[in-house]
Amino acid sequence: MNSATDLVPSIDPRSGAVRQHFPATDPHEIAEYVQRAQASARWLVDLGRVGRADLLDDFAAELERRESAILEIGDAETALGVPRLRGELARTCFQLRFQGEVAREGSYLGASIEHAGVTALGPRPDIRLTRAPVGPVAVFSASNFPLAFSVAGGDTASAIAAGCPVIVKGHSAHPALSVEVASAMKAVLDRRGAPAGVLQLALGRSAGRALVTDPGIAAVGFTGSVEGGRALFDLAGSRERPIPFFGELGSVNPFVVTARAAQEKADEIATGLCASLTGSVGQLCTRPGVVFLPDDDGGRALFSRLVRLLEEVPPAYMLTEAMASSFRTRTVAMAELEPLTTLHGEIGPGPTVRPAIIETAISALMSEDTALLREEVFGPFAQVCFYSSTDEVRRALRTLPDALTGTVFSGSSDDGLKPIVEAMESRSGRVIFDGFPTGVAVTWGMHHGGSYPASTSAFTSVGAAAIQRWLRPIAYQNAPEEILPEELRDRGVVVIPTRIDGVLVTPPR
Amino acid sequence: MNSATDLVPSIDPRSGAVRQHFPATDPHEIAEYVQRAQASARWLVDLGRVGRADLLDDFAAELERRESAILEIGDAETALGVPRLRGELARTCFQLRFQGEVAREGSYLGASIEHAGVTALGPRPDIRLTRAPVGPVAVFSASNFPLAFSVAGGDTASAIAAGCPVIVKGHSAHPALSVEVASAMKAVLDRRGAPAGVLQLALGRSAGRALVTDPGIAAVGFTGSVEGGRALFDLAGSRERPIPFFGELGSVNPFVVTARAAQEKADEIATGLCASLTGSVGQLCTRPGVVFLPDDDGGRALFSRLVRLLEEVPPAYMLTEAMASSFRTRTVAMAELEPLTTLHGEIGPGPTVRPAIIETAISALMSEDTALLREEVFGPFAQVCFYSSTDEVRRALRTLPDALTGTVFSGSSDDGLKPIVEAMESRSGRVIFDGFPTGVAVTWGMHHGGSYPASTSAFTSVGAAAIQRWLRPIAYQNAPEEILPEELRDRGVVVIPTRIDGVLVTPPR
Repeated sequence: MNSATDLVPSIDPRSGAVRQHFPATDPHEIAEYVQRAQASARWLVDLGRVGRADLLDDFAAELERRESAILEIGDAETALGVPRLRGELARTCFQLRFQGEVAREGSYLGASIEHAGVTALGPRPDIRLTRAPVGPVAVFSASNFPLAFSVAGGDTASAIAAGCPVIVKGHSAHPALSVEVASAMKAVLDRRGAPAGVLQLALGRSAGRALVTDPGIAAVGFTGSVEGGRALFDLAGSRERPIPFFGELGSVNPFVVTARAAQEKADEIATGLCASLTGSVGQLCTRPGVVFLPDDDGGRALFSRLVRLLEEVPPAYMLTEAMASSFRTRTVAMAELEPLTTLHGEIGPGPTVRPAIIETAISALMSEDTALLREEVFGPFAQVCFYSSTDEVRRALRTLPDALTGTVFSGSSDDGLKPIVEAMESRSGRVIFDGFPTGVAVTWGMHHGGSYPASTSAFTSVGAAAIQRWLRPIAYQNAPEEILPEELRDRGVVVIPTRIDGVLVTPPR
Repeated sequence: MNSATDLVPSIDPRSGAVRQHFPATDPHEIAEYVQRAQASARWLVDLGRVGRADLLDDFAAELERRESAILEIGDAETALGVPRLRGELARTCFQLRFQGEVAREGSYLGASIEHAGVTALGPRPDIRLTRAPVGPVAVFSASNFPLAFSVAGGDTASAIAAGCPVIVKGHSAHPALSVEVASAMKAVLDRRGAPAGVLQLALGRSAGRALVTDPGIAAVGFTGSVEGGRALFDLAGSRERPIPFFGELGSVNPFVVTARAAQEKADEIATGLCASLTGSVGQLCTRPGVVFLPDDDGGRALFSRLVRLLEEVPPAYMLTEAMASSFRTRTVAMAELEPLTTLHGEIGPGPTVRPAIIETAISALMSEDTALLREEVFGPFAQVCFYSSTDEVRRALRTLPDALTGTVFSGSSDDGLKPIVEAMESRSGRVIFDGFPTGVAVTWGMHHGGSYPASTSAFTSVGAAAIQRWLRPIAYQNAPEEILPEELRDRGVVVIPTRIDGVLVTPPR
């Protein structure tokens, strides 16, 4: 395979036309990328927490300055539409600044200062703890968030905040946008006289694999499918020196409507569900995967209303032709399980896709023979199961794979809630009440993750804790003051939240 | 292999006699162990943070009550000697109580309460974050800490504190002690009417592998060799549903003496080093692995003094005959690399072992052809390299594998310290100044870990953060008050350190 001559095409999903070609990164050149990254690590560390936060602010400002170019290229390459991409750009810039805020606040270091003393076990030395960046990291960007989970996305923002040089493997669904965003970030770095390896972009699958196996890469962030993520996870684990692989993979998100909720809130639920199932052409990892409705008049009425709304959703282009084709194949395969499943409406021929509505017998959802029904379908897809008792839905929840989210809509004085929530708590990273799982708030306490297959780690890829993926603890024993990182030196007051002799102390406000 | 009839012998290392036989756990029974553990998870969760802390206190008290039996069995099975085992029992009880303290203090939950509000991205829902126990965990105990890293050791203590049922795979080097400690813990659990699966002991290698692959096990803790740990790490990663494997493996710990330190503190260093190299018959993962001495009069004098002290150390029994045999094989292989290495004194014939002293040319330590010199030797082993410049020692440090610790002894106004410390910081979990790496303080800020091969994760197995290995974050979005865990409910004051609307707040003192 002569990958040096491989090309990554930028394709307009609406016309299928090739807009432009970009050279794939020669995998043999990845070692040089990594060396440049290693050579840039010190610059990022020397910037300090506040300096890195300023750098992230600058990235955000530069992306905002280039908004019109970014939206134009992004829409041409993804067909997601300008309004959605405008919102995503705002989110991307918010994330960059938020990770800077996390760095400034400093509690992410988990700083601890324990002076020498005597314990029940005898004398104890002076022990001080902080966290250091792990070194160069590889970030695999997502198809479905060409900005917020891509070159300047949350993985990159949190890694830079931590002090790690980043090599992004740009997604093949939007190479032109990746190049544009990388160029914006490079412009900021050049103005600051940064070394060349702080942020680099690589394109092409072979380059991606070379990144994961390069001995100089310390960790990998990934957002994408279970299949692709698992292959790279296995690669990271099979290295002579294994490295952590933080993969946010697929998710079949359960969505339960209680009988009372169906009675009381049918309209609100049907309208919200339709938007949640089909927004961004259903290409969201938090999209409801199985909707559980009560098998009674309220549930049936809600379903009819939902079907009517879904039938009104106009056909749309998916991110790539391959995704549209896979969407059609998967939904057809599910529909062919009839009578275990019932197709409502029709699955159109393409090139656009319409929402597919499949009603699945809850017994089929739980059957070992129909694993297909418990796998993620990427696209505007509504799978509905009618349940006859809380116990049944509880059992169904336990047969689903672990998920990013679990949602429950309940009604007034609803006493069937607890067992459903308990089943969700045990298998979901986030439990949502009377709302919709799509839309992941960027906050201190967000958790966007879960157990496998939702995620390959217990870490989040959204929110303040995302930075923890790129850090390793380091303890100093009896270190002289001048050797210690600034945050671990004795001062009159703490400047960041610090555990002093076992007691957590926060800075004066 | 009919493992149902396999036996695990308890052997007296001093006589080689079989003291007793224990049946190995039938790997086919492991599924039942795991089911019992799963069925006990709720009991541990319902105990609450404080209830689990009380349980850990009870474990400690019961172990103290059985001290004489524990020390007698332990010494007969390990030959570590009663004084060392008495100290280790005290450490074990201290750890149990300390992990309880961590549970009571509550900051391990990383609790965050963010009320609904409006951000630059629009309205934000109410988001509350905490951590939940991952479920049943498997703990592989260590040979060299038959109490502190075994059945009631740090992994078990932190997992119980987190709320996870534990199945310990007892080490084959001390089955009788494992059974005794498990029986003490079971007595406590029985008095409390606990279900049978809170703490279980399994014996035998096949049972260990069955534990790692059982679908109901959520995480694995391991303390042991790189070889054994890597095999289980690979097994955990190759599951259909991979689980985290927290392995504390081997370590070649660098120990650097600066020229000034050798001049000023030769006696202190030689005496301390001798104790650190040979204490517990050198069977410690934090034992100095390569001692770097300046190639000058001071360094040579220190070395002569160290050799004299080491020659006075009486021969001793290792934990098992196999370990003694491996120790002899490895040190002989190193000595045979002469003239790259020089053996000082002699390697005795057995069954006891004497400290082996190997002087290695620093160029040989760094050579690709002699990987043997950079691998851990388990036992009383001193490898010394003379260096001619700070730059040389810095380069040598960078060729060593990542380590649990790095130590530097410096003298007054020593200006060569910084580059050595920087090299250590980049590859060690703990950096020690003017002290010895053996003896790991059990404190809030301890880090006992490092990158591979020192550890398979960025987590510590000693100290407060050890509990983090057994937790997964869970976010609640717009949850009703009665559904929320107690720690996430709105109150007038916080009861544990909690981030409230982005600001870390500590309980009033």
